[in-house]
Order: sequence, then C-alpha cells, then structure tokens
Amino acid sequence: MSMFDQQQGAPTVVIAMGGHAFIQPGERGTPDEQSANARHICEQIMTLVERGYNLVITHGNGPQVGTLMRLNELAGAPVPPPPLDMLVAQTEGSLGYMLQRALLNELRIRGIERFVVTVVTQVVVDRHDPAFDKPTKPVGRFLNETEAKQRRDDYGWIIKEDPQRGWRRVVPSPRPKKVIQRDMIREAAQASHIVVAAGGGGIPVVKSESGDHVGIEGVIDKDLTSAVLATDVEAELLIILTAVDRVFVNFGTPEQRALGAVTMSECERLIAEDHFPAGSMGPKVEAIHGFLKRGGRRGLITSADKLLAALDGAAGTHFVGRL
Amino acid sequence: MSMFDQQQGAPTVVIAMGGHAFIQPGERGTPDEQSANARHICEQIMTLVERGYNLVITHGNGPQVGTLMRLNELAGAPVPPPPLDMLVAQTEGSLGYMLQRALLNELRIRGIERFVVTVVTQVVVDRHDPAFDKPTKPVGRFLNETEAKQRRDDYGWIIKEDPQRGWRRVVPSPRPKKVIQRDMIREAAQASHIVVAAGGGGIPVVKSESGDHVGIEGVIDKDLTSAVLATDVEAELLIILTAVDRVFVNFGTPEQRALGAVTMSECERLIAEDHFPAGSMGPKVEAIHGFLKRGGRRGLITSADKLLAALDGAAGTHFVGRL
Repeated sequence: MSMFDQQQGAPTVVIAMGGHAFIQPGERGTPDEQSANARHICEQIMTLVERGYNLVITHGNGPQVGTLMRLNELAGAPVPPPPLDMLVAQTEGSLGYMLQRALLNELRIRGIERFVVTVVTQVVVDRHDPAFDKPTKPVGRFLNETEAKQRRDDYGWIIKEDPQRGWRRVVPSPRPKKVIQRDMIREAAQASHIVVAAGGGGIPVVKSESGDHVGIEGVIDKDLTSAVLATDVEAELLIILTAVDRVFVNFGTPEQRALGAVTMSECERLIAEDHFPAGSMGPKVEAIHGFLKRGGRRGLITSADKLLAALDGAAGTHFVGRL
Repeated sequence: MSMFDQQQGAPTVVIAMGGHAFIQPGERGTPDEQSANARHICEQIMTLVERGYNLVITHGNGPQVGTLMRLNELAGAPVPPPPLDMLVAQTEGSLGYMLQRALLNELRIRGIERFVVTVVTQVVVDRHDPAFDKPTKPVGRFLNETEAKQRRDDYGWIIKEDPQRGWRRVVPSPRPKKVIQRDMIREAAQASHIVVAAGGGGIPVVKSESGDHVGIEGVIDKDLTSAVLATDVEAELLIILTAVDRVFVNFGTPEQRALGAVTMSECERLIAEDHFPAGSMGPKVEAIHGFLKRGGRRGLITSADKLLAALDGAAGTHFVGRL
C-alpha cells in the first residue's frame, strides 16, 4: 500500500484539529454527537493512511474542558474542583478514546493493520513565561458580576470582563517548551503506528525548584504544541484543520482574498502586516511558520471537509518551506 | 543496572493497584491527595525498575468514576451524562497522568532514563456475556428510594437495594476478552518503556453487528483485565496491590490464617472451598490463578507498603506457577 521506500521510512504528517471539530453547529456536544464527528474526521484522515504516511494526530479540547468546568461548578463543591492540568488529562483520555476507536474501526473496514495508540502527553512550559503575569486565555462559561466576584474571592480566579457578554475566567497560556513524550511519539510514528498525542495542547507542567515536574493551572495553545511536536517527530507536513477552507488576508474588507499558496517570506510579511487575528488564525499561521523555520517542508490549513481536495492541491492554504 | 542479559530480554512484571490506592483512609480524594499517594506508590515501584524488570502498571478507578458520576448527577442535566466507557476513558487520562508524572519524577531523582507512556486502552467484551443479563457491579453513590425510582424511570438504570444502606445503580461487569492495544503494550514494555495501561480494567467495547467496536455501559474487573494483559505481554510475574499485606483463609474466624506461598493446586482447592469473597479477594485470586494457568510463573498479592519486603520473600502471598 505504501508509496514510499520502506528502508527510507515513510514521511510523517502531524494533523491538528480543534476541540470544536467534535461539535457541529447546532449540536449540544453529547458523547454520541462527538463520537460521530470524530468518526467523520477519521474517515477523511484515512486518505493519509492509504497514501502511506506515518501519522500523528493532535486535538484541542476547549469545549470539552469547558463542559468539565461547568459540571464542577454546577455540582457545587462536594469534591474540590480539579486543577486545569487534571481536566486536560481527562479530555486526553476521553477524546483520545473517541479518536482511536474511530480510527481502528475505519482501519478495519479497509483491511489495514496498523497500531493506534493514544499517548497521554505532558508538555513543559517555562515557569518564568510572561503569560503567568498576564493571563489571557478565557476558559469556562460566561459569569454574571456576582458570580465573577464570588469566584475571584473563593478560588482566586482572575476574571476579565468581556463587553456585552459578561465576565469570564482567564488563565495563562504559556508557550510549549518541550513535549516530554516526544521520543516515544516519534518512535511509535516512525514504526508506522498511528499516534494520538498532545490533546488540548498537552498537560501543562513546569519544572519546580526541586526538579520535579508539577502540574499548573493553564492551557497551552494546541497549534503551537502541534508545531513543536511536528519538529520533534521530524514531520514533513503539518496540517491544521479548522472551520474555514482557506486562510484569508484583509478578512472582512472588500479586498478580502483567500490564500492558495504562500512562501516563507510571504508568510512573514503577512504576519507583520497583522492579517491574522490573535484569537483565531494568528496562532495557526504562527505555528506553521515556526515549523517551517525549524526545517519543516510543508504546512496546510484547511477544513476537514476539504482535506482530500487540499491533499491534491485543489483546496486549502499551502505553506511552502525548504525543499 | 540490569541484572538480566540484554539479548535475552528482561522479564516483564505487571503490577495492578486499586483506584482506592490513590485515596488514604480519612482523605477526601482531592487531586493533591491522589497525586501524593500516586507518588508514594511509584516510589515503591522504583525497586522493580532498579532490579531491571520491564514494567506494565494497571490501576482501578472505582472512586474516581464514582466522583465523575456524582458530579454529573449533582450538576443536573445541562449536558447529558456521559456513558461509562467515556468516564473510564476520562480516568485513564487523569490517573495515567498522575502515575506517569510521578514515575518520571522518581526516575529523574535516580538518574534513570526510561520512557514512560500511558496507553489509553480499549478492552473487548463479549456482547453475549451473561453479565449483561444480570448486572451486579454497584457504581456511584447510594440513593434514597425516591432518587432510585427517578433514575430508573429517567435513565433506565437498573437499581438494587443494599439493605441498611439504600439503593444503588448496578451495571454489568463482563469478562475481558481481548485488550485491543496488547501488541503495542507488549512491544513498548519489551523495549523497556514503563507502560501505564488498562486503567479501570480498560474502556469496555463490544463488537457490534456492523463489525465496529462500540462503547458499552459497563465496567470490567481491573484484576481480571490485568491478568489477561499479563499473559499478552508475556509477563513472568503478576503483582496485585491491595489494602492487606497477605491473603487470608478462614477470614474472620478463629482458624484465620495468612497465606505465605501457595501452589496452583492449593490455590484451586482454596477457591473451591470458597475462602475468597466475591467482592474483594475473590477476583484477585481468580485473576492470578488464570494467569498461572495460562503459563505465568509467579503471582503476588500484597500491599504497597509491603511490596519491597514481599519482593525479598519476607511478606505478601506468593502464588507459584510453572518453572
């Protein structure tokens, strides 16, 4: 089945999807709905398997962690609410399970024998990361003013006002420094196992003064972690799946234009010109740019539905690195 | 450090601990408490690493799944309560993270370089398993009569009365047939990676008529799964950690006697004489007996605190299989 010389080793692709990919517009995000959406995406991903690539799959977990936080909050405090590192770990288990089950079912239908493994992944961040002084990442639901004050007083949460929509907890989003399980993930991928890893951007830990790794209350951007991991596993291609088929410049203006292919230097110019908003396309483009700068060959941003067309060059925004 | 010929490969040990091992008597089971207890157990387990064994660690999740169920229940129904396979998957993530973090920290202190990997594990059960007709495993908290009836009507739960203590949901506990990730786990263990796997007895799935594996509402006994996995990974030794240092016969009578070492045939006689209660020591002895019958060499039941002494033959109940 493989189009690549076995001795040379097949190229590895890292493919990242958002936590929202498991919930379609209008859905409540029930386990059945999330499983069905995971299945649909894994069906698309099979094209990469059939074309002989090694595969590392990463995913976000925003809505899923939000649900867990909401549960803990609504339940009152019969048990103390788990810190964010634990919640991320929980979603690595549940979303990893959904993905690996779907992947195994799709492989069986095609008669392909590959191991599928979900690796619970810790990611080290720098405890002096400036993000700790200035938490920016909103998590959980919107609160009213009374709730916001209460949580600030009771739990020490940092709360920010979001005009018109209410108050919301914000947490630090430090940059990923090192994926602890990177060697294991690379070896597994290069042995042609399909690896699900770094869910939710990875479980954030810092090195304490004792030298121990300890969990922290924060979340790591999953696209940035995926890019770091793509370099770690010597991937040729980093694919970021998102809600839109292509990346736009001058978005929302008459000059709006979809990008087909961009070189490294064009990419740098567009970043400098501030075309990509911080909360959405910015980290994705930055992640792919970082991957290419560290030697990655290709990047792709597209939607799950356009993945097949994009692999044939007929859709998506392609980022071109070194030859 | 290894006492074994590298070419021949080090022997593999499977070590199983209960979900209660993460919560000491008198504790509420906060994340900090559970992490500290995980750390203490991993410190003991380091002896096995230092003696050169390959290691697969399994764990239960009873209290942790109970907490998640309680949370969902107390929260009302803003989101539908996840089925048990999803809750097991969540605890594989969170407890796996606690264990792997503790293991990595202990390895670092000792200057030992080994990969540690938590594998999200699906376990196939037979959809015609008699357990589905007769659910017996209590899960979640005790309910009063009104709550019990409500849940029976609203969710279709099967509820049993527990004299004096109230009503409780019971779910099927089918036997483990196949650990889907077994080959991956064996390869990783034999490559001397420390593997955390089959948490909570594994995420239960059945083969549907379409051939797909689908999740089910049930829980698999973690000792039985650990024993099946021990055979899969060609382990020489299966250790089951529990609250007591040794296994007793005639427990609670004047003839009570702690067992030091038992042969296969003694073990069979004691099982036949009904010395081991179904809800506690029974599955553990049965699990080890099954492992020895399938060719395993040694079994050990003891407490985490006596593990070191037991490894030197000075504590625990030892089960002796083939030479």
